[in-house]
Amino acid sequence: MTDQLRIRDYGIKIGEFKPGELNKISDVEGVTVGHATLDTDIYKTGVTVINPSENNIFLHKYVAASHVLNGFGKTTGLIQLNELGQLESLIALTNTLNVGKVQDALVEYMLEKTRKEGVEITSLNTVVAECNDSYLNKIADRPVSRKDLLNAIDNASKDFQEGDIGGGKGMSCHQLKGGIGSASRVFDLAGHQYTVGVLVQSNYGQLKDLSINGKKIGIQINQDLQLNNEEDKGSIIIIVATDLPVSSRQLQRICKRAGIGLARTGSYMGHGSGEVIIAFSTANLLPGPSKNDDNCVFALKVLQEDKIDLVFRATAEATEEAILNSMITAREVIGYKERKRNSLKSYLHLLRKEFDD
Amino acid sequence: MTDQLRIRDYGIKIGEFKPGELNKISDVEGVTVGHATLDTDIYKTGVTVINPSENNIFLHKYVAASHVLNGFGKTTGLIQLNELGQLESLIALTNTLNVGKVQDALVEYMLEKTRKEGVEITSLNTVVAECNDSYLNKIADRPVSRKDLLNAIDNASKDFQEGDIGGGKGMSCHQLKGGIGSASRVFDLAGHQYTVGVLVQSNYGQLKDLSINGKKIGIQINQDLQLNNEEDKGSIIIIVATDLPVSSRQLQRICKRAGIGLARTGSYMGHGSGEVIIAFSTANLLPGPSKNDDNCVFALKVLQEDKIDLVFRATAEATEEAILNSMITAREVIGYKERKRNSLKSYLHLLRKEFDD
Amino acid sequence: MTDQLRIRDYGIKIGEFKPGELNKISDVEGVTVGHATLDTDIYKTGVTVINPSENNIFLHKYVAASHVLNGFGKTTGLIQLNELGQLESLIALTNTLNVGKVQDALVEYMLEKTRKEGVEITSLNTVVAECNDSYLNKIADRPVSRKDLLNAIDNASKDFQEGDIGGGKGMSCHQLKGGIGSASRVFDLAGHQYTVGVLVQSNYGQLKDLSINGKKIGIQINQDLQLNNEEDKGSIIIIVATDLPVSSRQLQRICKRAGIGLARTGSYMGHGSGEVIIAFSTANLLPGPSKNDDNCVFALKVLQEDKIDLVFRATAEATEEAILNSMITAREVIGYKERKRNSLKSYLHLLRKEFDD
Amino acid sequence: MTDQLRIRDYGIKIGEFKPGELNKISDVEGVTVGHATLDTDIYKTGVTVINPSENNIFLHKYVAASHVLNGFGKTTGLIQLNELGQLESLIALTNTLNVGKVQDALVEYMLEKTRKEGVEITSLNTVVAECNDSYLNKIADRPVSRKDLLNAIDNASKDFQEGDIGGGKGMSCHQLKGGIGSASRVFDLAGHQYTVGVLVQSNYGQLKDLSINGKKIGIQINQDLQLNNEEDKGSIIIIVATDLPVSSRQLQRICKRAGIGLARTGSYMGHGSGEVIIAFSTANLLPGPSKNDDNCVFALKVLQEDKIDLVFRATAEATEEAILNSMITAREVIGYKERKRNSLKSYLHLLRKEFDD
Repeated sequence: MTDQLRIRDYGIKIGEFKPGELNKISDVEGVTVGHATLDTDIYKTGVTVINPSENNIFLHKYVAASHVLNGFGKTTGLIQLNELGQLESLIALTNTLNVGKVQDALVEYMLEKTRKEGVEITSLNTVVAECNDSYLNKIADRPVSRKDLLNAIDNASKDFQEGDIGGGKGMSCHQLKGGIGSASRVFDLAGHQYTVGVLVQSNYGQLKDLSINGKKIGIQINQDLQLNNEEDKGSIIIIVATDLPVSSRQLQRICKRAGIGLARTGSYMGHGSGEVIIAFSTANLLPGPSKNDDNCVFALKVLQEDKIDLVFRATAEATEEAILNSMITAREVIGYKERKRNSLKSYLHLLRKEFDD
Repeated sequence: MTDQLRIRDYGIKIGEFKPGELNKISDVEGVTVGHATLDTDIYKTGVTVINPSENNIFLHKYVAASHVLNGFGKTTGLIQLNELGQLESLIALTNTLNVGKVQDALVEYMLEKTRKEGVEITSLNTVVAECNDSYLNKIADRPVSRKDLLNAIDNASKDFQEGDIGGGKGMSCHQLKGGIGSASRVFDLAGHQYTVGVLVQSNYGQLKDLSINGKKIGIQINQDLQLNNEEDKGSIIIIVATDLPVSSRQLQRICKRAGIGLARTGSYMGHGSGEVIIAFSTANLLPGPSKNDDNCVFALKVLQEDKIDLVFRATAEATEEAILNSMITAREVIGYKERKRNSLKSYLHLLRKEFDD
Repeated sequence: MTDQLRIRDYGIKIGEFKPGELNKISDVEGVTVGHATLDTDIYKTGVTVINPSENNIFLHKYVAASHVLNGFGKTTGLIQLNELGQLESLIALTNTLNVGKVQDALVEYMLEKTRKEGVEITSLNTVVAECNDSYLNKIADRPVSRKDLLNAIDNASKDFQEGDIGGGKGMSCHQLKGGIGSASRVFDLAGHQYTVGVLVQSNYGQLKDLSINGKKIGIQINQDLQLNNEEDKGSIIIIVATDLPVSSRQLQRICKRAGIGLARTGSYMGHGSGEVIIAFSTANLLPGPSKNDDNCVFALKVLQEDKIDLVFRATAEATEEAILNSMITAREVIGYKERKRNSLKSYLHLLRKEFDD
Repeated sequence: MTDQLRIRDYGIKIGEFKPGELNKISDVEGVTVGHATLDTDIYKTGVTVINPSENNIFLHKYVAASHVLNGFGKTTGLIQLNELGQLESLIALTNTLNVGKVQDALVEYMLEKTRKEGVEITSLNTVVAECNDSYLNKIADRPVSRKDLLNAIDNASKDFQEGDIGGGKGMSCHQLKGGIGSASRVFDLAGHQYTVGVLVQSNYGQLKDLSINGKKIGIQINQDLQLNNEEDKGSIIIIVATDLPVSSRQLQRICKRAGIGLARTGSYMGHGSGEVIIAFSTANLLPGPSKNDDNCVFALKVLQEDKIDLVFRATAEATEEAILNSMITAREVIGYKERKRNSLKSYLHLLRKEFDD
């Protein structure tokens, strides 16, 4: 386990479901996360990669869906992902102006990897999502490179770091430091234990609106910081993984409940903030191209619709906690133009006071 | 078999797939269609009912989806149908201003029917769709009654009539007489024969645009009729049924291909014309409410995505033919304010000439 | 002013914007609300009508949009409302199984009203929305009648009652009594004061999740009530009115922010709960049918997109407060099968204790 | 004028509206198109750029919308384009695996260009669309470079070439050679002349389905060519430009009518074929970021909805003709693995015979 202290380590429990073992998206079997971070005086940025599978995801696709709460964002791949209900690439998170470069690198990586397994790709739908880190990062220089993506893929692991790292290095959340955060929930259904895991790249919101488990801590923090309101130009990307057998339509419903967790931390889904949720389920391996007509109908395991409330709640809870984890693990960062984002951790005394009440 | 002559009886074959036995939506096992017709000097209207199942559809729901090409229409039930991917009621087609009354009657019918089977309904999503027959029918009097719906349900059969009947009694198509039409396609896949059936309530378009199998017959007909162009204020409702195992997402893709058939008859999807497609598959019986946790994951049979082109083509072909059937079977009607719609059948000599070339 | 005490009267202030004069949707000029209530031992139901305009809305249409958060609902009229971006009827709220009857009555009312003004309607898009009051109301008897709709229209006023009245008579919210609630916000922009008003018919959620201004009051209330969790089968309908000039696309964005307010009261948007938002702006009178080509381009006043955050926040705040108003004004109701819903008002002492801290 | 012969030069007239002066998308004032082409034994590919404005489009944005008929495609930028109803970049068309690289180059170009005008971009939504040219082009080598994009931008002009050029170099259409094609329509409204222009990158369909003005020419051509059916894995990108004042919602409606033109050439919107339409209007210059509150409401000129049928028809016609132009101007190409696509031009004798009848 990483030695990062997370929101739960401070006694703050979000919701009623039990977290998984790591309380990360990687509690879903096969899911790993890797980072590459650029950290100089003027560059605070990077790439984070979610690898959904131990197999080559292009050759063993998963059921997937996405939902856009606020479409001020440049995410790629969602049109095809929704049309076919399939994920066929790793998911990369980076900054707004580096989406093309990272997508290009991801295409190259997937082509090579798949070629080695004997399959030549001629069509590939890659998913790259972004937030805007231009407050701390000199974004227009676009320093993220192909190598960064490969590094992030290489170091993907189950027990990954959170906070000011990877794609989250330069992100801000509620005018404090944001970044990468994760959480998970487990629950029993029909004698099986299932997991919902969430990872966020958080980069939205105003300080005065920050709310932790219902406590309006942002207003208190700002009594100290005295920050002016800033326009919400941030975005949050929310990745939801589950091992529960669900259809693409059901995943779309699940995506919408991530918005509940987001709302509870204090987001108003500002005009300039792209709020995008992408979900996949590892429970069904989708069949590859059919070679003849013998096998063209298959059995997709799906959840009975009237049990889906469990997943809705788990998703909302895990999203709320993942956001808080992204903030509490992120350290203070001073970046481009000497701009500074404080860490939520510096305001622990306020948190404690609130929650001791 | 009804003794109505249909477009194929005149030697005009749409597409390359074979029709089913009746060449109607009822070639899909279990599907029946019934009509109630109001036919007085000023009232030319009615109700047509598509009964998707020999069972009570509320207790044995089917996978379903819908797609709106042009939303100038008052169809009910599509929001929930798409959210849950389920059909749980019969489908009724009527005129624009009678949707509420027919929906109310359908609710009552389903409540009573289901009560007799021991289940008390407290929530029910009924699907009622409409076109505007105000050219031939004194629509504002709204003469369709609850009894008409019940009659239509009672007389539902596999070998139903088409043309100026039921909900199609007062409809116009390409400034000629439109109404109810149907067609089907069968094809082999993995050793099974599958069926796609389509039923339309046609009520759109300008005469000059009418095209039959690529021949611009409308212009020729108008050399005789000398009609002025009318604004396209009509609508078409297209119901697609299949026994192929497909998911709700796949049905939504299939719905869109009905638009291909529509475009080929000469529609421009006019501003005032509501173009709505509703599709269901009889291949999976959706499980009822789960009573405990033992059975909350089930196997949904679905088609491999890369075989779906067959269904796309079958749907487009059957839609085009169903529209033509709705026109060729509809007789000349003189209605409200002595307004008249000629029958396409009167122009058979032109058709023959064209297709003999 | 009605003598009902509302959440603000108990010292609980939601958000940072100022409410309008009445703190109701009717603070938007021209908007009125009326109720008809059925209140017998077994019937607890009714109709609530939002009249958007002092003029005949069919002849003087408003810009409108809608958004469905969870589509388990039977609302009518949204397809055309979104396609054309127009509202052309009053909006009626009632129970799930009475939508058809109320829609039919609304069609008749609009036809007659418009006929008296010299226009014969042949096509009309009516908006009727619903929640399921079957806990307190014997819903399957469907006692709401045409007369009830007319009564509700007749008694529409600016200073309308809230709580267990009209369509809200039998509704439940967080396992307490819900119903009709309203709130508004005013703010200055470019030297003008603008208003956003919200009205809800609330009928969703579990007691344990109820949250007031961040305080998890539901858990405390349940220490007293000891209710079991119920499935969320409710729904909430949220109507947003504004006098700010906005396009249909912008209204759709605004609709989504009502979900923020909803999430903050404790909703998880349960599977069985239809969450629907309908918004209109009174700032532009849409031109009627063009008679010739002289006037076919018109100027639509719209807000600059980068100012829209103000409206987002106002909408979220007003939605949250409208929900709380629906609960605090609703009295205890004992209905069908002696089922009971307590009033939130009975737990004021808990509220006070919480907020005095 | 280019010396390319186009479908109209062979006496084939699509629809009833008059084309603009060039009968190209560039008949819309300010719109230009440029190409960069890669043409070696194994590489048949390139980039085509649509420049919507003589001004910097980022600083002077246009109203825009898009619609996806079939989402098997990797187009970027549509999420934000639809959310805000704005186009803020040039549009680039290329092949499936080069989207990232071209997008990256377009970001760099826009940043530099805008920087020179004194504005530093920190967020930018670029639109890049693609079809799959892997039949004729060794797509996995991804030879398109940044320089190619810049070349395409540099040589943009009003009287651009069509056919096997730019992004269209390696494209196939109905198993013949496809590529870039364009057409336009002009019409009078309220004393003004308005223009609708369309440009396509065509790459879809089976030969047997090819239909020209209703004539099923594909079947006849295949009597000569004897090609086997291929799966439809192509895609078509359709760009619609107009100088008519329309809202984003109206543009979305217009986009859907491009599908009519597509259907009439013989497309079934195959599973593997991404059908995407992107539309913009040059009639309103959207205001830049508001500096204070004095100017936050502006007048958007929009068309009265009931006149929109004119635009629908013009769009459908121009799309159909643009597709035919893409084919008739494309020369025979032999590419990767010696694969060959014949030119429709070689079958002119069949066309003539058909249309002389």
